[in-house]
Amino acid sequence: MRTEADPDFATVAERIHANVGRQGFMNLVGAELSELSRGSCTIAVERRPELLQQHGFFHGGVTAFLVDNATTIAAATSRGQPALTAEYKLNLLAPAVGERLICRARVIKPGRQVAVVAADVFCLTDGVERHTATALASIAMLSEAVAATTKSPAA
Amino acid sequence: MRTEADPDFATVAERIHANVGRQGFMNLVGAELSELSRGSCTIAVERRPELLQQHGFFHGGVTAFLVDNATTIAAATSRGQPALTAEYKLNLLAPAVGERLICRARVIKPGRQVAVVAADVFCLTDGVERHTATALASIAMLSEAVAATTKSPAA
Amino acid sequence: MRTEADPDFATVAERIHANVGRQGFMNLVGAELSELSRGSCTIAVERRPELLQQHGFFHGGVTAFLVDNATTIAAATSRGQPALTAEYKLNLLAPAVGERLICRARVIKPGRQVAVVAADVFCLTDGVERHTATALASIAMLSEAVAATTKSPAA
Amino acid sequence: MRTEADPDFATVAERIHANVGRQGFMNLVGAELSELSRGSCTIAVERRPELLQQHGFFHGGVTAFLVDNATTIAAATSRGQPALTAEYKLNLLAPAVGERLICRARVIKPGRQVAVVAADVFCLTDGVERHTATALASIAMLSEAVAATTKSPAA
Repeated sequence: MRTEADPDFATVAERIHANVGRQGFMNLVGAELSELSRGSCTIAVERRPELLQQHGFFHGGVTAFLVDNATTIAAATSRGQPALTAEYKLNLLAPAVGERLICRARVIKPGRQVAVVAADVFCLTDGVERHTATALASIAMLSEAVAATTKSPAA
Repeated sequence: MRTEADPDFATVAERIHANVGRQGFMNLVGAELSELSRGSCTIAVERRPELLQQHGFFHGGVTAFLVDNATTIAAATSRGQPALTAEYKLNLLAPAVGERLICRARVIKPGRQVAVVAADVFCLTDGVERHTATALASIAMLSEAVAATTKSPAA
Repeated sequence: MRTEADPDFATVAERIHANVGRQGFMNLVGAELSELSRGSCTIAVERRPELLQQHGFFHGGVTAFLVDNATTIAAATSRGQPALTAEYKLNLLAPAVGERLICRARVIKPGRQVAVVAADVFCLTDGVERHTATALASIAMLSEAVAATTKSPAA
Repeated sequence: MRTEADPDFATVAERIHANVGRQGFMNLVGAELSELSRGSCTIAVERRPELLQQHGFFHGGVTAFLVDNATTIAAATSRGQPALTAEYKLNLLAPAVGERLICRARVIKPGRQVAVVAADVFCLTDGVERHTATALASIAMLSEAVAATTKSPAA
């Protein structure tokens, strides 16, 4: 995190880490925020039996969770505004076989009202990453005033 | 489940229940398959702290997991074929505040190659359901032959 | 249009009709705004050879155009605010064979920032409607102030 | 087009050009297939008043048409199979102001049943391209046998 060169971002990053730390589901899944910078975010999780589906792949729901969280966090870094997932589309490309599932999200278009964020998910096996999913998300950017009174992404 | 009137469906339903029972992530989340019939599926989960995000709502990733699983299962019931999520789009409509999160999926268009499935997610509070998310999914329908050799939704 | 009982809506409807009348592409396609009320909009077009693809069906691009316009207009009716398409997802369900293509859009969730709108497209053949496409859209709602200075849906 | 080095592709390209030439809507819009190779396709159109909306930008429906056609054609090149749009999601990023609208589609994941294709749309003004839309599509790949009997993307 380039916090020294960008003190505002240090504050944003600190708030994001605190919020993520309070997410019960993030802890249940055991995912970690492994990279955070202006306009991008990476979240990853190690393989455990309780994250899999019946064929031994990471469950599609784990992929979706990483995408949901990483896209919203990436949007939140871009201006330091509170952000809420409005919607996303997720295409599964290949079975998520491997030891580690990694979701990298990057802001394509920041915006005052809506940020557009792309995410790609990779599964790591024997040091090789395989592209397992791709997603496109719209994130609602809330003003501080709206954030204080509104809890809906479609508000 | 209308299994007596539809013996083929009884076999399909049994296979689906067995598959779902082997999903580590379904067990980790603690969700249950609460309704299953030709062309529809309902999955629900009770509120627990480890399913929430920082504001105390069900995490968006829990909603996505329910949608991912319920849409694929609904498609699998329609012809008894193996089915894999190809893609879905999810719009979050309102914060998922409440005691129980319920996802109802229904097949809009069955198909030999691709089934189209809609899902709606509701959050139950004091006996009242609130519509919290809506989704539209494309599910790849695999022939038994293809299912035996292929593990990718985009294969 | 229930304009007498809802004078505000009469003004909104008048503005929408004026805007649509200035759309060169609406005129080129030959589509008509056949129904407009608070939260809903129907746009339809008659079959002509120049709207078809190589198999004689309505081109997917015509369906997409109807969806794009009808969802945005439906959102604009809900509060009378200027509205811009942020994004939509469109599933084609069946070939658009027939004499008339009809898109009906309805607001699922109005919002100050983002409205969520569903649309269904039907093709009319011998008096029977066939469901040929379904869509889910997010429409950015602009304040008058923002609308005056901003032209981007993601601004 | 690299037709000399890839005679199979020359046949595929010829069939695609013939199909596109029979699309009444392609001719009405006045778009041209400006690039075609294995796994990619570019379609572009020059600004004309009848392609615009009320603010003088290219209509969103024109963008959607380019995306619909370019993603399906890109998928069709990848194996020479007939292809039908199953679904796509389109995010509008910025107003399509300019002299020429260009959609570039590329296959992300070829597949026997479903190909995943990304597309980006740019608007050219004074020699500079601006990114105005991004899309993600699932294209149903038909076997010749299925193509002969089936006309639906979800069949």
